[in-house]
Amino acid sequence: MKQYETFELRFQGEALTENYANIPLDATFTCDGKTTAVKGFYDGDGQYVARFFPEQAGEYHWAVSGCIAAEGNESCEEAAEDAHGLVKAVDTHFEFEDGKLYIPFGTTVYALAHQDDDLTEQTLATLKTAPFNKLRMCVFPKDYDYNHNEPPCYAFEKKANGSWDVSRPCIAFWQRFETILDRITAMGIQVDLILFHPYDRWGFDTLSQRENLVYLDYLLRRLAAKPGIWWSLANEYDLSRGKSLADWEEIEEFVAAHDPYGHLLSCHNCICFWDASRPNITHASLQVKGLSAVPRWLERYGKPVMIDECCYEGDLPHFWGSISAREMVNRFWRSCAGGGYCTHGETFLDDREVLWWAKGGVLKGKSPRRIAFLREIMESLPGPLQPAEGGMIQLMQMSDSEVQEVLKPLPEAERSIASEIVKSARRMDACDREILLSGEHEYASHCDEEAYLWFNDLQCLGIQTLQLPKDKQYRVECIDTWEMTRLLVADKASGTTTIRLPVKEGLAVLATRIQSETHHSCKIFYPPGIFCPGDKRSWSAIQRL
Amino acid sequence: MKQYETFELRFQGEALTENYANIPLDATFTCDGKTTAVKGFYDGDGQYVARFFPEQAGEYHWAVSGCIAAEGNESCEEAAEDAHGLVKAVDTHFEFEDGKLYIPFGTTVYALAHQDDDLTEQTLATLKTAPFNKLRMCVFPKDYDYNHNEPPCYAFEKKANGSWDVSRPCIAFWQRFETILDRITAMGIQVDLILFHPYDRWGFDTLSQRENLVYLDYLLRRLAAKPGIWWSLANEYDLSRGKSLADWEEIEEFVAAHDPYGHLLSCHNCICFWDASRPNITHASLQVKGLSAVPRWLERYGKPVMIDECCYEGDLPHFWGSISAREMVNRFWRSCAGGGYCTHGETFLDDREVLWWAKGGVLKGKSPRRIAFLREIMESLPGPLQPAEGGMIQLMQMSDSEVQEVLKPLPEAERSIASEIVKSARRMDACDREILLSGEHEYASHCDEEAYLWFNDLQCLGIQTLQLPKDKQYRVECIDTWEMTRLLVADKASGTTTIRLPVKEGLAVLATRIQSETHHSCKIFYPPGIFCPGDKRSWSAIQRL
Repeated sequence: MKQYETFELRFQGEALTENYANIPLDATFTCDGKTTAVKGFYDGDGQYVARFFPEQAGEYHWAVSGCIAAEGNESCEEAAEDAHGLVKAVDTHFEFEDGKLYIPFGTTVYALAHQDDDLTEQTLATLKTAPFNKLRMCVFPKDYDYNHNEPPCYAFEKKANGSWDVSRPCIAFWQRFETILDRITAMGIQVDLILFHPYDRWGFDTLSQRENLVYLDYLLRRLAAKPGIWWSLANEYDLSRGKSLADWEEIEEFVAAHDPYGHLLSCHNCICFWDASRPNITHASLQVKGLSAVPRWLERYGKPVMIDECCYEGDLPHFWGSISAREMVNRFWRSCAGGGYCTHGETFLDDREVLWWAKGGVLKGKSPRRIAFLREIMESLPGPLQPAEGGMIQLMQMSDSEVQEVLKPLPEAERSIASEIVKSARRMDACDREILLSGEHEYASHCDEEAYLWFNDLQCLGIQTLQLPKDKQYRVECIDTWEMTRLLVADKASGTTTIRLPVKEGLAVLATRIQSETHHSCKIFYPPGIFCPGDKRSWSAIQRL
Repeated sequence: MKQYETFELRFQGEALTENYANIPLDATFTCDGKTTAVKGFYDGDGQYVARFFPEQAGEYHWAVSGCIAAEGNESCEEAAEDAHGLVKAVDTHFEFEDGKLYIPFGTTVYALAHQDDDLTEQTLATLKTAPFNKLRMCVFPKDYDYNHNEPPCYAFEKKANGSWDVSRPCIAFWQRFETILDRITAMGIQVDLILFHPYDRWGFDTLSQRENLVYLDYLLRRLAAKPGIWWSLANEYDLSRGKSLADWEEIEEFVAAHDPYGHLLSCHNCICFWDASRPNITHASLQVKGLSAVPRWLERYGKPVMIDECCYEGDLPHFWGSISAREMVNRFWRSCAGGGYCTHGETFLDDREVLWWAKGGVLKGKSPRRIAFLREIMESLPGPLQPAEGGMIQLMQMSDSEVQEVLKPLPEAERSIASEIVKSARRMDACDREILLSGEHEYASHCDEEAYLWFNDLQCLGIQTLQLPKDKQYRVECIDTWEMTRLLVADKASGTTTIRLPVKEGLAVLATRIQSETHHSCKIFYPPGIFCPGDKRSWSAIQRL
């Protein structure tokens, strides 16, 4: 037994042919007086298995009861260097159990496990070199445009009448599925496992609620002891034909109650967001394209916000499958610079109808390289990003006197205008205001006083003024998110710092704190070939030498 | 006197030095038993003037009373070929009085009239060849970043204490201002005249309400008989320090009541929209960047919707002055393809701090050529565009049974999903829904069954399916809004028509009805060099030969 690695007890017993989904097989694992109870599962051919995920090293006593009776002791070694435990939500970001920061850069291959072996191998080979460390994929096969194939096998055996017999899981399916999951997580990729989805022609979306719970029980017995798996209750829960809201809530409760370890748990919408403030839910998993509201959602839920579907890079005749690589990259930066996280998908139609978003295969788009570049930057930061404080939404929630207090440092003319703006925004129709403010949103975030990130998005600011702490020094870079270049534009910058930028879309500005005792004045670098307005009067004010 | 041309009666009388803003000078113009009463104004040097705008040809009797007494007859000729009368709002579009369609393509030069003569001449020369037929400009000078100059003259003389004496309009100012207006309107450009604005250091924004009305009275006496002028109560009314909402309503009422001809009348916001459903208001003049809601605003107001400020093409360190040419062009297309209209502005900083948006000069940006291209297309259409019917917002306003009725023609699976989507949208937080729907908006509009326009915006649809009337034939073009090319992609198309498009952003699709009796089947053209998915199965279904 090794900390953060699945431990398995396997016994030979009576071979079962009926009703083997939720067998009476219980196990306990006790260490330092703390006992974890798990349920075992039937793995075919008279194999009875109990799995355990040891979250601490030490001396364990285990005991199995029910249809198998056994007990023993096991010593659990300290975790290997590359094992970090489950990913957990901490405030509005993610960490492994050992405290290592996890920053999700997801992709989407819904029906990865329902393709033939050749295609599956190709997909896994692609994932090996792709920049993604999270993957949205389904337990059940997908029926939709460009997805008409039968999977190699299904999660259940069939009854004589042709309907699914959830009491007889298809062992071949689960063994194959589990192997795929293991191979993906072994690459350092977290699997955001989608438990239900509406794009179905086989009846998996319209099982009875009793059947749903039998299925989930078996799945949790098999998979809960594996790190690297998250529970996504659904892709587009609100399009399900078979489940009411009450059913979904019961499913959420069931998964949370039958998972001994507290894997990440979310539920993905088509239209209406699942309420991520519910206690069982660990983070918001949103389908939405407008990303200016990420800070609002972070405040609402107090949990990480994943933009798990923001359209796909591709050329489909559907709005959701036809954004450019550039727009996909922009959506990643908008999410990250707003304190959230984003998920990629790709839908280029080819003659085989193998689209990455559902079947896998190879990546054809231009966004993954740029997502890799963003990931490198995000992982170089000293910690997770929080959205910048202030802004209209926060001002609108304050009393008039609080607003005046906040605006006090501004010069009189600006204070007066800012105060009128807040009053005007309060009078406004809520939907109009949302549209208006989303168009004026500044994508800005920071990691305490260690790093500040601005994503300028469509703004082509020739000059930008940053407000940095006066008592610290920063290295300021202009990042071209499309060309993937980083250019030093100010070194040893402190306080109000004005930089010049190329006049183009898709730039970000990153200020990272310099750990140095010596204080120098700010020097501005003028990158060659960059537009430079020549007015001496206005520039004399901002050139601090 | 000529129909649609300003007629002026000018009398010599006593020279006035005090209190000559609202002199007792009344005139009536009677034709065919219909009398129009106007007020005259003092034009300096003992000149008393009454102006009239004849909206019909015929025999007129006029009579002047008050400080001048005179009467006479005047024959009014039919309008010259190039005179069309005032622009009026008709439903959600604009027409001249003679019924000619007017499609606004505006630009912005706030302080045009407050620059020296050389710069003013340069601005007028630029306007002569620019693609704009509407101009937002202010009566009062502008004080703001990059705008610190004193104007050549001011609207009023000063009192001994240095404050403005609104009872003594500065005749030199008004004569110069009027000449500039006349020269602009003579180019076929409608002046959207901004009566108040908050960017002020001289006190024009903080006159008393009594003074405001004296000023407006004089302005209306002088200018109301001129075609080609619209009244914009304000630029950013809600940032005014000197006026309450009640003041603004009184100003609106005053302007409407003292304008004998009903010039177009609007009020432009910074944040909270002015309520364009108020009876005096002829159209919405909005500052907003999110343009997916144009159809919603058209429905709300039942009047034309002008996006009079959508940010400016430029490189300023402000979000409002730093959008790319491409984004400006996109915003024009989004507005027009949504059934609305858009206004341009440009803010490139140069060493003289002459930015087109406020001072004029020359245009430096890349959007005007593309706006000219759009204008050419819009003016080639057989009539004004209305937004496409249907869509989520309309479905959400219907009862469940009405929704089912609308969805009836869909295949069962699609109907079921569509119905779940409507239900889910209804449950949603209104602000989240606005953000969500704005990201999924289809920019689509039509001119009855004569023309259909889609703007694909950021969508890179490799294939697009159009729903055209089955009993008519259309010529379908792919328009590259940036490259300014038009490519025939389907001829004699009817009913459901699938076209192939290059995989890129910024494309529009225009279907115009072919006026022909012969009915041919639809033939799809494959433009050379365009991505062409090779799957025979999917293509067999859509290739209608």
